[in-house]
Amino acid sequence: MTGWADRLDAATAAVGHPCLLGLDPHLDLLPEPYAVARDPRASREERADAVGAFCHELLDVAAGRVAAVKPQIAFFELFGADGWRVWEDVVRTAHEHDLLVIGDVKRGDISSTAAAYATALLEGTPGTDPAAVCDGLTLNPFLGSDSLAPFLRVCEGTDKGVYVLVRTSNPSSSELQLHGDPPLWRAVAALVERWGSELRGTSGYSAVGAVVGATHPGELAELRAALPHAPLLLPGYGAQGGKAGDLAPAFPHPDAPWRGGLVNSSRGIAFAYRSPEEAGAPWKDAARRALDRMIEEVRSALSASKRST
Amino acid sequence: MTGWADRLDAATAAVGHPCLLGLDPHLDLLPEPYAVARDPRASREERADAVGAFCHELLDVAAGRVAAVKPQIAFFELFGADGWRVWEDVVRTAHEHDLLVIGDVKRGDISSTAAAYATALLEGTPGTDPAAVCDGLTLNPFLGSDSLAPFLRVCEGTDKGVYVLVRTSNPSSSELQLHGDPPLWRAVAALVERWGSELRGTSGYSAVGAVVGATHPGELAELRAALPHAPLLLPGYGAQGGKAGDLAPAFPHPDAPWRGGLVNSSRGIAFAYRSPEEAGAPWKDAARRALDRMIEEVRSALSASKRST
Repeated sequence: MTGWADRLDAATAAVGHPCLLGLDPHLDLLPEPYAVARDPRASREERADAVGAFCHELLDVAAGRVAAVKPQIAFFELFGADGWRVWEDVVRTAHEHDLLVIGDVKRGDISSTAAAYATALLEGTPGTDPAAVCDGLTLNPFLGSDSLAPFLRVCEGTDKGVYVLVRTSNPSSSELQLHGDPPLWRAVAALVERWGSELRGTSGYSAVGAVVGATHPGELAELRAALPHAPLLLPGYGAQGGKAGDLAPAFPHPDAPWRGGLVNSSRGIAFAYRSPEEAGAPWKDAARRALDRMIEEVRSALSASKRST
Repeated sequence: MTGWADRLDAATAAVGHPCLLGLDPHLDLLPEPYAVARDPRASREERADAVGAFCHELLDVAAGRVAAVKPQIAFFELFGADGWRVWEDVVRTAHEHDLLVIGDVKRGDISSTAAAYATALLEGTPGTDPAAVCDGLTLNPFLGSDSLAPFLRVCEGTDKGVYVLVRTSNPSSSELQLHGDPPLWRAVAALVERWGSELRGTSGYSAVGAVVGATHPGELAELRAALPHAPLLLPGYGAQGGKAGDLAPAFPHPDAPWRGGLVNSSRGIAFAYRSPEEAGAPWKDAARRALDRMIEEVRSALSASKRST
């Protein structure tokens, strides 16, 4: 059986690049046709449906262009049970478009609870449409190995994977992630390598990846060295300040420049219509152009790194 | 306006003790009348409803006995959108029983995402019944201050509160929480104190509490000293090995022995019917007896500590 890393490798090889589209439907930023989503007088059901309709269009933009999407569950939970219904529908629709789905859920809890999350979000509860369940998840490591174990058991028996927060892209991430000497992130990285040691594919990478902020370019080579077998998930491209030229250390395979990680952009694509140069353009056209531009930038940065290797 | 700490103080003073009932509906442990919850041939809706029915009975046991309950959201997410519907119903029903609700959700994410969680789970989205929204939440600090800020803003304007993971009760908690010298938990504790510094009530405690495993009794005095203004949430009583006699350092007020924290038991109460001494007893009677026993043990341990002060 092929595991997550090989499945991801095949999917990114097929499109020729490691770009990932984040689905973060911030209500305040949604284009006018979906304004009902932020209207407090509308019913919760209608508002959640508007978020779903927007995501459906974004999935249409993503289809065939990228290997995977990363929906952020908080923007669905905002609408409670109605939001969860739409979440499941969006995951299902992404699969219909042949997209892998990495659920940005950042769960982390003691083992018996973690087992429930692992079933709900990664393995699939009987009665839940298997197509409505994610292929990968982001997880929080604060509680240690036993909080990860139930997810690793799912990865073992399937071609699913997880991405553990190691060094995040937000401004205050250093408060705890740099605590100690060596810094905390190194201890998390060592655990990630250990957790993935039995879950490696033919690509050399494991089913246990790491979330590593692309806003810390100086650290990326260090992070990659500490995580030689972890597929990386690099958020923060575009809106959060990450740049294509800084990505090379995460992708150390000159002959397979897509291999080693996923580069995420969310707001920079979905809400490109708000940028001055897209003034007046239909939002979906703007999103399509922004995604094509990101793919081109990332491709070119990674093949430039190939030339300099 | 009175904040979370004062509201909690009044509610625990009214019952005279700081016991908290956790609602962790583990499917495998549910009594026979709710066995449909674990039947993979039943519909997801039916299964979720059985979990809800069980929680309703537990809330009946809790009502008038304890100040607050702590439902664990993972066991509801297990049933996707159906589970979230039941989650909202359970929170609403707890409020009908005059119980405070601390949602055990352990969320933690970058600020724009954290804002969505804070609205969804603590403040309430327009369109969501305010009674179906929690009074307090557990949160994960791994991403630092900006991941907490949106929740603190809700606490500022309301009488709601949060409990940040500082030192958890699971076996592998030491892997990261003891990283560095001083250990990571001390850095988290310092942040908790800072986050709560503007949110203190007349009791001296703030709206920013700390989750502190009662399975580390030797550390409890140290934790309390590092967190002088944080209401503590002590899981792990009973099933996870915590003992009443070890609790005293968390409750340093001889004249108000309920003040300073909440002591949680989940499985030890809900599934007391599985213990040998309750063989053959109806599960709800067993749960009632177990809760009364816990309350008595905790009361007596805290007043003994009062005598020795």
